[in-house]
Amino acid sequence: MGKRIILGSASPRRRELLRQIGVEFEVMVSKGEEKYKSAVPEEIVKELALEKAENVSEEIEKCTKKDLVIIGADTIVVLGGEILGKPVDEADAFRMLKSLQGRVHRVYTGVALLDFDAKGRKQTTVHAEKTDVYVHEMGQEEIRRYIATKESMDKAGAYGVQGKFASYIDRIEGDYYNVVGLPIAYVYRQLKQTGWEQ
Amino acid sequence: MGKRIILGSASPRRRELLRQIGVEFEVMVSKGEEKYKSAVPEEIVKELALEKAENVSEEIEKCTKKDLVIIGADTIVVLGGEILGKPVDEADAFRMLKSLQGRVHRVYTGVALLDFDAKGRKQTTVHAEKTDVYVHEMGQEEIRRYIATKESMDKAGAYGVQGKFASYIDRIEGDYYNVVGLPIAYVYRQLKQTGWEQ
Repeated sequence: MGKRIILGSASPRRRELLRQIGVEFEVMVSKGEEKYKSAVPEEIVKELALEKAENVSEEIEKCTKKDLVIIGADTIVVLGGEILGKPVDEADAFRMLKSLQGRVHRVYTGVALLDFDAKGRKQTTVHAEKTDVYVHEMGQEEIRRYIATKESMDKAGAYGVQGKFASYIDRIEGDYYNVVGLPIAYVYRQLKQTGWEQ
Repeated sequence: MGKRIILGSASPRRRELLRQIGVEFEVMVSKGEEKYKSAVPEEIVKELALEKAENVSEEIEKCTKKDLVIIGADTIVVLGGEILGKPVDEADAFRMLKSLQGRVHRVYTGVALLDFDAKGRKQTTVHAEKTDVYVHEMGQEEIRRYIATKESMDKAGAYGVQGKFASYIDRIEGDYYNVVGLPIAYVYRQLKQTGWEQ
């Protein structure tokens, strides 16, 4: 009991997932811009997740950084070597969905946990989870209709697995919630390690 | 446009999934008891789904069975040859979850579609979808805590993939929504075949 948990993410999906498994937490989103140096998807999402968590950490006064866990996370979609982030506009979303339909892509979510104990000592764990997603063939009209739902715009790869895009997802291999934006079974186990209890 | 769609299932999850992809439908649950003869999981869920759809069909007046699609569905959980239905009580739920934790099981959902055209001619399609679900190891206390959420009682295998049980699901292979109770990508494609449009 008793550890304060801070989610360093603006994503409403991540909030919902933490709530879904019964975690009580606060949200703090850092103003910092994240940049990555790595070229490997696993490393990129780990870098970005850690930066997000560290940026939040910097905004918290040192004397209050005790019995505290900060969670950072970042999700990217990778298709044949190309990294798809969030689409910049509807034309970009169309291009992304056209490239995703009829084939498999990989979703990576990086999760960083900064765990401060009662004495303020920090332990950092960073993890990347990957899930393969098989998207059915989509007609241009179907892609346009999906974009019209407005579900595309704030999501890596221009789709949300949990909404209307469900019509086109034939199969996944890996953690489903990782595709939503947070590998929640992993987070649950890590939180248990920090001494958090349900 | 214009085909009337009837879901022959009392499951709130199945209703939510159809709504999620934008299908307008009515719900009719038949009073008939379903029984199966087969011993093979694929065949069992197909039999049960078809019976559910046929039972609903029997309760509809013949003259109104035009431009109509009836959907029946049934889900079972199979673990090492044993079929897990809905638990009869909390002790049964405990036994099921204890047997599921730390290993992989398979979820089968059967879907039957009775498609009546403008002249009342019926076309029947029946399908079984399977998904492998990897459940993390759970302590007895975790199992008890999960049962206390009351999510177990009306679900095959005593868990709901979409609720608090998410903490324990490491990985799936197949359609996620199949585990929720309806392989929605399959249903979407079949509905398109019947002439239904979004």
